Amino acid sequence: MKFSIDKSIEMLERTPSAISHLLQGLSPEWTSVNEGGETWSVYDVIGHLIHGDKTDWMARAILILSDNSEKTFKPFDRFAQFESSKGKSLAELLAEFIIIRSTNIEKLKSLNITEQDLCKTGEHPIFGTVTLSQLLATWVTHDLDHISQISRVMAKQYKDEVGPWIEFLKILR
Amino acid sequence: MKFSIDKSIEMLERTPSAISHLLQGLSPEWTSVNEGGETWSVYDVIGHLIHGDKTDWMARAILILSDNSEKTFKPFDRFAQFESSKGKSLAELLAEFIIIRSTNIEKLKSLNITEQDLCKTGEHPIFGTVTLSQLLATWVTHDLDHISQISRVMAKQYKDEVGPWIEFLKILR
Repeated sequence: MKFSIDKSIEMLERTPSAISHLLQGLSPEWTSVNEGGETWSVYDVIGHLIHGDKTDWMARAILILSDNSEKTFKPFDRFAQFESSKGKSLAELLAEFIIIRSTNIEKLKSLNITEQDLCKTGEHPIFGTVTLSQLLATWVTHDLDHISQISRVMAKQYKDEVGPWIEFLKILR
Repeated sequence: MKFSIDKSIEMLERTPSAISHLLQGLSPEWTSVNEGGETWSVYDVIGHLIHGDKTDWMARAILILSDNSEKTFKPFDRFAQFESSKGKSLAELLAEFIIIRSTNIEKLKSLNITEQDLCKTGEHPIFGTVTLSQLLATWVTHDLDHISQISRVMAKQYKDEVGPWIEFLKILR
């Protein structure tokens, strides 16, 4: 599938609501546990998604479209949520994610991005030159990656409970 | 996490709604494509989930709890959806999944399953003796496995669009 701004917005609009319907009201036994060691819980993942929406995706898109001569992205802090989520409930984080995403979608639509704009570039601190379409495709894929992670982290809580079926459950391996 | 009937119901109640909020209204470019070869599209996965709810999970639970002397499960047809989904739109399948799951949850609650019941057994056609708690834990995990699959199938449609970011996106590898 070739990149499409409309089809990307379709997905970005839906993921916070889907995640919220999956997680809202679940017991902490599902949402506050991780996959062991330094891995993230579902709660940590939601904080990470919020931080991305607050500081990363749109800021980078706007920088690419700007007249700035300097277009190097700020590095993304993958651990910011351990500070920023402090004291907040999962329900509060889910509500915050829905609001910040909705604001971002409005901003994104208001940019009226053209096919030409999609080829404009910025400088990623690790990868070097990247295009606006690559940034936006990554935003979509990043959402889906974390939905997959959320499902896996929760599924693993039943790893020892499924007995011989573990053989059929790809997510537990 | 030890198996819990209440915490299993929590999850089983939420997954159809979460899936529906993710997929409802998306373009077919997201939902009718697969990962290549004989793999399943999102549309195929929803048909599979419906078939499981119609013929498999509850039928097996009820058989385990029954007084039948013969408790061998019918084999599950993993390809039934290619026939049963024919002519139906994705929106129709999503609505069907929500209804059949809701009916199943009501039935499951009405069984008033006790700790003792959870140890009762049936005979799986491949694995042999399995317990009710293993069956129900597998139902929950199976839902989450397919949410992960749905996310992956859709993410892969942008595999060639994310550029160098592919290195950070576990779901695309």
